[in-house]
Amino acid sequence: MSIGIFDSGLGGLTIVRALREKYPKEKMIYYGDTLRVPYGEKKPEELIHLAERITVFLMEQGAQLIVDACNTTSALALDLLREKYGHEVEIIGVVEPGAARAAALAKAQVGLMATQATVNSGAYQRKIFSRRSDLDVHSMACPQLVPFIESGDLSSYPLQEALEAYLEPLLKEQMDVLIMGCTHYPLLRPMIERIVGEGVLLVDPGKEVVNSIVRYPGGDHGASICYTSSDAQDFAKKADLLVPDHGFGTFVTYDLLEER
Amino acid sequence: MSIGIFDSGLGGLTIVRALREKYPKEKMIYYGDTLRVPYGEKKPEELIHLAERITVFLMEQGAQLIVDACNTTSALALDLLREKYGHEVEIIGVVEPGAARAAALAKAQVGLMATQATVNSGAYQRKIFSRRSDLDVHSMACPQLVPFIESGDLSSYPLQEALEAYLEPLLKEQMDVLIMGCTHYPLLRPMIERIVGEGVLLVDPGKEVVNSIVRYPGGDHGASICYTSSDAQDFAKKADLLVPDHGFGTFVTYDLLEER
Repeated sequence: MSIGIFDSGLGGLTIVRALREKYPKEKMIYYGDTLRVPYGEKKPEELIHLAERITVFLMEQGAQLIVDACNTTSALALDLLREKYGHEVEIIGVVEPGAARAAALAKAQVGLMATQATVNSGAYQRKIFSRRSDLDVHSMACPQLVPFIESGDLSSYPLQEALEAYLEPLLKEQMDVLIMGCTHYPLLRPMIERIVGEGVLLVDPGKEVVNSIVRYPGGDHGASICYTSSDAQDFAKKADLLVPDHGFGTFVTYDLLEER
Repeated sequence: MSIGIFDSGLGGLTIVRALREKYPKEKMIYYGDTLRVPYGEKKPEELIHLAERITVFLMEQGAQLIVDACNTTSALALDLLREKYGHEVEIIGVVEPGAARAAALAKAQVGLMATQATVNSGAYQRKIFSRRSDLDVHSMACPQLVPFIESGDLSSYPLQEALEAYLEPLLKEQMDVLIMGCTHYPLLRPMIERIVGEGVLLVDPGKEVVNSIVRYPGGDHGASICYTSSDAQDFAKKADLLVPDHGFGTFVTYDLLEER
């Protein structure tokens, strides 16, 4: 028994950290598809296929709870994954808990920053409108952010400039809540807070996701393992830098899409 | 008792025609949002709002069956519309029956031509993969086609050139089925057939949708009425040209988004 977590890259490690607070000694299996990051510009058909391949891999590794830590695949593939594999494993994603939190907090105007694919899927918008049809949602695709963060950059001037340009239109719409709709963005939280100011409440869907676990009882205390589709040493180095308390001791390079 | 049908423009009139075969004397209420056509480039939050406004309007007009004839809003808003209004009216869309038909016919490679918003929503891809995970789906957004058709052009050389450019990559993928994933596209069927040849089966989701009606018993035989958000005379003229047997006698200009 173990928890499988996947993301396009390193961002999902922040969710691993949150999961460890709830299940301190649990075996965690992480899959970071760093060979194909960023996911946000890919076509839905490719994203759905990737999410399914990774889900099946994590099930084969014994995962009985699977956390789709990636907003993009949560938006596009979660319904399908649950339909096909939900009878065998509990599968949770970040969009629904994030949207629920935003709908609970918002006064009138919700800002959504996310990848292009997440924005275009309409998943956040549907989940918010189904709870609160009085709200307006203003979405902004932020394609430049993930590459900055995956390169280890959380503070450069070009990054800040890009972030300001993305957030300005949302500030003009007088958003009172901002969803950080990509698992990478909370790593920029201090910079985002500086730009939007105190009047805007930030929603981190990754923080909400742990509360949405329903069935998983917890179990074996095996050794956690972290897979990446690109270079494992490089992944480990960046993981130490971005999420120092990730808790993984073993990093393995494994590309799911290679012929087995 | 009556059937409400809506679309971004004129394309949905082909579905009215099909509905009349099943319910010959039924009162039909059509809403064509020609003021805002094309829908395919709009943001999900706007599309979901528009679809909800139109649905509520049709319910107010007494519709007890609502057909979302627009692929784009079927892809983005149908789940939400059913969740919110499904207990009061039967609501059906074109994506699910279209995807089901494609999954039933396809050998290996499915081509999907649709608006940008429909492609990006991932709705067709999910519905196909949930039925057949052995299939590949190749999607192509065709943003230039709707404006041609709404202007009444079904045969010009620039239109044919655009269509060939859109279909070529799908032919390269050796699609054996092609979904005409926008209610406008079946009006180009002869041209599409010429380009793809006999080896490719065409799926017209609008033809499948009538078979997906479950609850509606049929009823009153009142006078049908056609609303458009732009000029009613112009709409009537184009309707006569594109779908001569549309069957509407009354055309009314009514913009839902104007303050009532």
